[in-house]
Amino acid sequence: MRPENTVPEHKPHILVCNDDGIDGEGLHVLAASMKKIGSVTVVAPSEPRSGMGHAMTLGIPLRIREYAKNSRFFGYTVSGTPVDCIKVALSHILSEKPDIIVSGINYGSNTATNTLYSGTVGAALEGAIQHVPSVAFSLATYKDADFTYAGKFARKLTRKVLREGLPPDTVLSVNIPNLPEPEIRGVAVTAQGSSRWAENTIERDDMYGNPYYWLSGELQLMDEGMLYDEYAIRKQYITITPVSVDMTNHSALKSIRRWKLNR
Amino acid sequence: MRPENTVPEHKPHILVCNDDGIDGEGLHVLAASMKKIGSVTVVAPSEPRSGMGHAMTLGIPLRIREYAKNSRFFGYTVSGTPVDCIKVALSHILSEKPDIIVSGINYGSNTATNTLYSGTVGAALEGAIQHVPSVAFSLATYKDADFTYAGKFARKLTRKVLREGLPPDTVLSVNIPNLPEPEIRGVAVTAQGSSRWAENTIERDDMYGNPYYWLSGELQLMDEGMLYDEYAIRKQYITITPVSVDMTNHSALKSIRRWKLNR
Repeated sequence: MRPENTVPEHKPHILVCNDDGIDGEGLHVLAASMKKIGSVTVVAPSEPRSGMGHAMTLGIPLRIREYAKNSRFFGYTVSGTPVDCIKVALSHILSEKPDIIVSGINYGSNTATNTLYSGTVGAALEGAIQHVPSVAFSLATYKDADFTYAGKFARKLTRKVLREGLPPDTVLSVNIPNLPEPEIRGVAVTAQGSSRWAENTIERDDMYGNPYYWLSGELQLMDEGMLYDEYAIRKQYITITPVSVDMTNHSALKSIRRWKLNR
Repeated sequence: MRPENTVPEHKPHILVCNDDGIDGEGLHVLAASMKKIGSVTVVAPSEPRSGMGHAMTLGIPLRIREYAKNSRFFGYTVSGTPVDCIKVALSHILSEKPDIIVSGINYGSNTATNTLYSGTVGAALEGAIQHVPSVAFSLATYKDADFTYAGKFARKLTRKVLREGLPPDTVLSVNIPNLPEPEIRGVAVTAQGSSRWAENTIERDDMYGNPYYWLSGELQLMDEGMLYDEYAIRKQYITITPVSVDMTNHSALKSIRRWKLNR
């Protein structure tokens, strides 16, 4: 039986990571929630690393540091990306593989094309590559975040994944509306929609009169219907998208073979 | 008709990017090769940004600089990731969308799970997100690189893509063996195989006696057969893998819906 499908009979060991860094409020909510169902190790970037996608650090070494916020929170920081955190946690911090990796709770949704930019999802995908079932959690807001219900739902879903397992090389990317529990209309299992950013890069001059550019934009809804993550979350549903390590467009193989490039 | 499928009747405008940075030998070979079939704009990271995947820069502004190596090479540098380069090129450097984006030629193969870590592929995927047909090229070696045939093949394939178009939200990730043309056995249209790195992170002490960790490893062949990129390139074939922006594991939607999370 593959590790992905193993149901632990002992108290599960849960590795918690994120991309907002060790001080992220969502990380602390997630770690506290997970402690109710298992033993927890926190390994997070030493500073915010949003938008890092599946980036890993190649050219420079990494540092691991112990971090204690207070008597109730202990963790490790890694001076790199979310993917680095998972790699270093599995190779040098943990003595054995965790039963599950949970990443988040991210500040801001990771629907649609954000799946590619997201370090929160990147950490989970690295878990899957290393054969650990992994789930990414994101709260769909950039202001007035209330992680209360997201933390509770993360625990419910983590229990489910520990029981059911996940398909190989597949993580769940979960997006939760920033709403009190009664206003959430349900759970939708969705596909990554094609909503994408309308770029609106800021161009300004610095104090020397030299221009700088700051990436910015707004996520535009590109497809409608409850199959699609961004649509569903705007309708106040929690979305669960199974995200694959395999990025092949399998349906395109045939048409490209017709190009007869061997001639 | 979607931009992806447009066949330009004029001399094509080709945007060239990479992840090894503006000084990368493969970038210069690719730009020179593309000049034979179109007008070329080079926009590349100001320094090497390997392993950046789909990372984008959020927390700090970016700088654009003009770069002239000699009278035959002019380009722009962006102080960020390969994805940043594409974003800034399309929003602030080019006055209209290019006909095609080519990324590379990367130093080192981007088969299998490297698809996720690769900034070369990341740049191409960003092109697809912005509705420009895009191709990533990588040379399968870390030493004694000879980009001669890779540059020639890149031109042949780019011409083909300009004629045929690409499926929406799909790029081609092309890996070329580091061999002279007569030793290359053909072209294989492949899927992203499940080969992955056996982690072998280096742990050493610095001059103060404090430990540091440097990510390292070796790509292990995990699946055999000409369907899979890493297998095919080891058999001396050029591999072409169609890579999708949509990372959904569509076949998993049904089984997760059976969890009945709405109860």
